[in-house]
Amino acid sequence: MNDQVTLERIEGGISAPGGFRVAGVNCGIKKKHGALDLALVVADAPAAAAGVFTQNKAQAAPVLVSREHLARSGGRAAAIVVNSGCANACTGPEGLAVTRSSADFVASVVGCAPEQVLVASTGVIGVQLDLDKIRKGTGAAAAVLSRAAHLDAAKAIMTTDIAPKEAAVLVVSPAGAFRVGGMAKGAGMIEPNMATMLGFITTDAAVEPAVLQRALKDAVDVTFNAITIDGDTSTNDTVFLLASGASGVAIGEAGSYNALVVGLRDVCGVLARAIVRGGEGATKLVSITITGAASVADATKAAKVVANSLLVKTAIHGGDPNWGRLVAAAGRAGVAFDVERASVLVGSIVLFADGVPFDDRAPLAADYLTGTDIDIIIDLGAGGSHQATVWTCDLSAEYVKINAEYRT
Amino acid sequence: MNDQVTLERIEGGISAPGGFRVAGVNCGIKKKHGALDLALVVADAPAAAAGVFTQNKAQAAPVLVSREHLARSGGRAAAIVVNSGCANACTGPEGLAVTRSSADFVASVVGCAPEQVLVASTGVIGVQLDLDKIRKGTGAAAAVLSRAAHLDAAKAIMTTDIAPKEAAVLVVSPAGAFRVGGMAKGAGMIEPNMATMLGFITTDAAVEPAVLQRALKDAVDVTFNAITIDGDTSTNDTVFLLASGASGVAIGEAGSYNALVVGLRDVCGVLARAIVRGGEGATKLVSITITGAASVADATKAAKVVANSLLVKTAIHGGDPNWGRLVAAAGRAGVAFDVERASVLVGSIVLFADGVPFDDRAPLAADYLTGTDIDIIIDLGAGGSHQATVWTCDLSAEYVKINAEYRT
Repeated sequence: MNDQVTLERIEGGISAPGGFRVAGVNCGIKKKHGALDLALVVADAPAAAAGVFTQNKAQAAPVLVSREHLARSGGRAAAIVVNSGCANACTGPEGLAVTRSSADFVASVVGCAPEQVLVASTGVIGVQLDLDKIRKGTGAAAAVLSRAAHLDAAKAIMTTDIAPKEAAVLVVSPAGAFRVGGMAKGAGMIEPNMATMLGFITTDAAVEPAVLQRALKDAVDVTFNAITIDGDTSTNDTVFLLASGASGVAIGEAGSYNALVVGLRDVCGVLARAIVRGGEGATKLVSITITGAASVADATKAAKVVANSLLVKTAIHGGDPNWGRLVAAAGRAGVAFDVERASVLVGSIVLFADGVPFDDRAPLAADYLTGTDIDIIIDLGAGGSHQATVWTCDLSAEYVKINAEYRT
Repeated sequence: MNDQVTLERIEGGISAPGGFRVAGVNCGIKKKHGALDLALVVADAPAAAAGVFTQNKAQAAPVLVSREHLARSGGRAAAIVVNSGCANACTGPEGLAVTRSSADFVASVVGCAPEQVLVASTGVIGVQLDLDKIRKGTGAAAAVLSRAAHLDAAKAIMTTDIAPKEAAVLVVSPAGAFRVGGMAKGAGMIEPNMATMLGFITTDAAVEPAVLQRALKDAVDVTFNAITIDGDTSTNDTVFLLASGASGVAIGEAGSYNALVVGLRDVCGVLARAIVRGGEGATKLVSITITGAASVADATKAAKVVANSLLVKTAIHGGDPNWGRLVAAAGRAGVAFDVERASVLVGSIVLFADGVPFDDRAPLAADYLTGTDIDIIIDLGAGGSHQATVWTCDLSAEYVKINAEYRT
């Protein structure tokens, strides 16, 4: 099916797809004078909308309100408002009221129902969001909305991210050509050092909300949900997807659904890997692929345990082809694993196979590990044929310094 | 029940209880000339024996053989032989054969059945154990067995541990007085940097094997299994418990069983906390207590997630009273948690309660965090009454350096 779909990377970020205008402005939440800290995404007409949210039990006010709005609107949204600098998390009933008022204000400016406004915040937790600043920023943003302002929008959602993160593709499929675009902010940790991940994706395909929600989940599972910096999840993690239909390409039956997912996975994958590369103190993007698993769930579970192992992450940072740490991490993942049949590849170098180490190849592997893009493949030897890939970064002393030296 | 039991810390380590002689000798496995690397524990008569082992699916030869021996002997052992410097893990059938031959040789020296010998190894993985060195060492150790050599034995099981770890108590109970003693090696990581934890415990109480196994599990659950340095488990983790009966105090019914568990928890707790204090780069012993949980399992699960959170561990290292990281870690533990009813105490300072932060108390808490023994209490606000405590250490840049700069 995939061979009928071609992808072409294009410019334009979140407003590459037709039907959306965006803005990124300063509203004074961030301490740095003039820093962009409010992004507004407005659909020319109410769009189909989908969202996935943090699984953390401590959920910030914007997460609670956005969930509610998606349910009440039946998956339709006309605008997304995002602020950086304040997460509006652990802020109780007052924080919730501020979020609702923000959405109401955006709705009045954009001219839509309040439940057609989605909200996201990132920044300091335990501090109330200043509603006046959000109102001022929304007014300013609404006045400068354009398809050209995608980079401003991507900058306005950053906290300590090193660089703005954008991606867009033209998807050419038998059903027709449409665009997918997006922006994200990542795990350069935010004050007080919580790794909030936000992703905002658009498409000009025409998609019903229920199908859109399924497609978003299908894409996020293997992209945003397949990355890990340090295993911590935030109170605010959110990914929204809006579909304007402006391309006239209707997504429905199997083939066109597949084309949508291929496009979403590409854009979400580029953004997710950019988040990992931007992880605090990260010097390497590491892909951990688990093969020979009894199920995809097993493969994913094992990949996450390996990707979050401090011993693995420090070994990779130090350029040490330490197959023992990889075997031990896979062995403790709680999934079917047979060390006598397992194998470990670093790049294309087999360091361990069928219970036997090949330590004479360690210098070759050490040389490979001097690179910045590292592929590791572990076969569980469990007789299964399932696999999964998770992306992570190495763990450096710099990470510890950044996170230990920060003071709330 | 506990008020009928008194504990008195005593000297003598693993051979403080009557009925055991021990030795620690050099047999040439460790590279450093003359370093103690083989410990032998011999019971005057076959003792009741119990063991708990790593849950890692990759299990070293000594783990496989010791499990088998405990099953075949019906929980009786006359000797424990331990070597450091070579883990005999990922060594395939040859490694298994060497372990069996080691046990056979020890049995011939001690004069017991092979299945009455328990075996443990710690050190480099993927390297075959030198049987000749084990034989030579066993012979040398057997010649110098004594109750006085407990410190030599504790030194002989060390790898990169900073100091030997011993503990012993006199337990005075209505059933009579008996001793519990032990030694352990910990998580100063070993070549190639796997955190093998070994614990060897003895008592001169008289206990049937089935009761002994239950008591060991009851003690290990809240001590050795309630510590975490970095979440990684090894191929070799093992705790053995032998009961000689030399005190003449029989353990059976509720009261005396309780006295045994109290003694075991004390000795295992002291050793477990010593392992955490000796964690690589560790500067603080941190106890994480979760209260208000729906079950003990929930409390333990949440405590482990918090204790393994890099953001929590780095915050504590940096002396940052970052309640937000604690709330977020508890929130992602996958257990019942209500942020609007949760609370966070650092020492006795309430930093967060019922959804409200008390940031004015941060300086007080920061001052408390300059200490080396840190208590953190998180109430999940889930309406339950269960609790659990896990011990961990802070995460320093030194940890990363040690583990990144080592080369296999």
